[in-house]
Amino acid sequence: MQNHLLSIIEDLSLVRKNSPLVHNITNYVVMNNTANALLAVGASPIMAHAIEEVEEMITISGALVINIGTLSEPWILAMEKAVAKAVKLSKPIVLDPVGAGASQLRNSTIRRILDAGSPSIIRGNASEILSTLSSSGKTKGVDATDSSESAIETAQTLSRVTKGVVVVSGATDYIIQNEAIHKTSNGDPMMTKVTGLGCTASALCGAFAAVQNDHLRAATSAMAVMGIAGEMAKTKSTGPGSFQVHFLDALYEMKEDDIRKFYKET
Amino acid sequence: MQNHLLSIIEDLSLVRKNSPLVHNITNYVVMNNTANALLAVGASPIMAHAIEEVEEMITISGALVINIGTLSEPWILAMEKAVAKAVKLSKPIVLDPVGAGASQLRNSTIRRILDAGSPSIIRGNASEILSTLSSSGKTKGVDATDSSESAIETAQTLSRVTKGVVVVSGATDYIIQNEAIHKTSNGDPMMTKVTGLGCTASALCGAFAAVQNDHLRAATSAMAVMGIAGEMAKTKSTGPGSFQVHFLDALYEMKEDDIRKFYKET
Amino acid sequence: MQNHLLSIIEDLSLVRKNSPLVHNITNYVVMNNTANALLAVGASPIMAHAIEEVEEMITISGALVINIGTLSEPWILAMEKAVAKAVKLSKPIVLDPVGAGASQLRNSTIRRILDAGSPSIIRGNASEILSTLSSSGKTKGVDATDSSESAIETAQTLSRVTKGVVVVSGATDYIIQNEAIHKTSNGDPMMTKVTGLGCTASALCGAFAAVQNDHLRAATSAMAVMGIAGEMAKTKSTGPGSFQVHFLDALYEMKEDDIRKFYKET
Repeated sequence: MQNHLLSIIEDLSLVRKNSPLVHNITNYVVMNNTANALLAVGASPIMAHAIEEVEEMITISGALVINIGTLSEPWILAMEKAVAKAVKLSKPIVLDPVGAGASQLRNSTIRRILDAGSPSIIRGNASEILSTLSSSGKTKGVDATDSSESAIETAQTLSRVTKGVVVVSGATDYIIQNEAIHKTSNGDPMMTKVTGLGCTASALCGAFAAVQNDHLRAATSAMAVMGIAGEMAKTKSTGPGSFQVHFLDALYEMKEDDIRKFYKET
Repeated sequence: MQNHLLSIIEDLSLVRKNSPLVHNITNYVVMNNTANALLAVGASPIMAHAIEEVEEMITISGALVINIGTLSEPWILAMEKAVAKAVKLSKPIVLDPVGAGASQLRNSTIRRILDAGSPSIIRGNASEILSTLSSSGKTKGVDATDSSESAIETAQTLSRVTKGVVVVSGATDYIIQNEAIHKTSNGDPMMTKVTGLGCTASALCGAFAAVQNDHLRAATSAMAVMGIAGEMAKTKSTGPGSFQVHFLDALYEMKEDDIRKFYKET
Repeated sequence: MQNHLLSIIEDLSLVRKNSPLVHNITNYVVMNNTANALLAVGASPIMAHAIEEVEEMITISGALVINIGTLSEPWILAMEKAVAKAVKLSKPIVLDPVGAGASQLRNSTIRRILDAGSPSIIRGNASEILSTLSSSGKTKGVDATDSSESAIETAQTLSRVTKGVVVVSGATDYIIQNEAIHKTSNGDPMMTKVTGLGCTASALCGAFAAVQNDHLRAATSAMAVMGIAGEMAKTKSTGPGSFQVHFLDALYEMKEDDIRKFYKET
């Protein structure tokens, strides 16, 4: 495995320089944080879910991020339409299968989204990635797993199904495309005590994929920047409230020196 | 009245040890805060409102929290279905009748929810508790009241109607079940300057009821923890913005010593 | 142009004294911030979008704020109904045409809202104000423009169409009613790195219009208070996360001396 330090630095710089518009159809809980994280890292958020306007929003955006955290049928229809349009326009699509496996609705929605178009990047924890593969209808007999390590094989299978990148988040993040496996090990346990940081990671994957055509690299850079911001935030925080504040500041302030200081591949 | 110090310490410890899943069907304004408060106190939030999946979510959760802050018909239908399922599974139900009395829709929704199943705990301010009793259709001729003290009798009547606990929030919180009256007097006026801290209190009642079968005790512990976190936050805050941050930190950091230091029953 | 220092001080004091109820039908992304900003400045937020209850909510409120940031048809119908009721009750209406011009849905919604009733105050950036005028159907052949200066003429035309105040936000804010042009130049570039501060400005316009019948003056005071709070927050912030926290604190803490110290008309 190669060291990704220089590409992370370069990709963050590309996001800040190009300030890509990222169209999010995401859940109610995290919308505010996601928008703020995209602004802090240097991108521009759009949040729009009406079926009447999602196609126009994709057209002006650099990437589409679909997050199934708080579903209902009108939103699912808009997601399908947005994905189909993004495919047509060759815009990168990120799927965050929040809570995959927790309900039939989530599983069937994942299936519908995958049928509408293959995501460039799917990001979830081990359990969500597993359920996403099951929901794809393209495989059978997957065994449940919970550690990100043991989900590597599942992610590789899912990557072959979607012909895209699959990110398994955890203490170590695995960023996978077919046989290629990138790893980043930044971050802090406090990140699990703030709601929606997984969703933020997916949104950042969208921002980076909007400016970096190599989506394996884009996702790797995005996950590293997330983790580094988490470690920067941790040094100033006394709990999840202050962590959230300093995390946004860190995304905004992060300099090449910070990346060099905090980045660790394994 | 007994002193609840030891049970508060024990119940907070139970929440942190068991990390109960709390299913919230709540309002758009507070979803993020509620999720973060549940995480900070040691519980795990689920936010899901689609009628297709609420029953599955209840099944895996330790408690259900219904909050009527931003209603619409599809959400009300999901609330009814979720409540009925929670009753069937004997999971504790918390109702937060936000803005009860402000519109016919809110009153009729409260009636529909009470008809679907009796909440284990109802938490609101004096005016909301009064309107909830009126909306229940089980009583007539209630006189309006605004101080939490004067709502005690109303709360006792409502408790007899629902056969559950009723919490009247205010400078002093009254936690009532039939003839039993618990009081907690922690908190700070700054809590009224941050949106959704009442909703957070209701969500915490859900987390505590998920691990403490004595719901009168669970609600008392939850309200005390809210108030103590508020006082801890106040010492570090210069306004409602920083208060909100330190409040989450306090929920996360709160130790037995903090409870002993800040807790006051009256 | 006159100096507005004394009227700003007086109007902020009126908001705090009267604590007006402000009814918001706004977007999901900013609801929490908007509610918190209204509380911090001394007003009281209501968020309600169900068509069944918006009329009752207007009836008890001092102002209505309509924000089209995350639209869907049920919300648009509620907006129309709320605006019509506010007109009937002579309550001030603020329109924030978020993303005007970005989709046909937004443009047609603006048209429908303007048809339902003329806003007392419209607040947007130069591009949104231009698209709002185009969408009104009352003019033709408007040239695109992006700086707030060059939008002055557009805003004057829009003001004549709506017979209300039009605010063009930017580094300098122009508050316009027919021929009258007020200017405020407070604020900080960091405000563009926090989502929803434009929406907050519109909500504050609502709070100020609820207590100050001269809506040109009300909007001028609201925009000045926004900008001053931004400058106060900037002195304590290291990034957009901490800025957001200190901004709410500043709205809450702001004293006459702060207004005298920071206010600059041009």
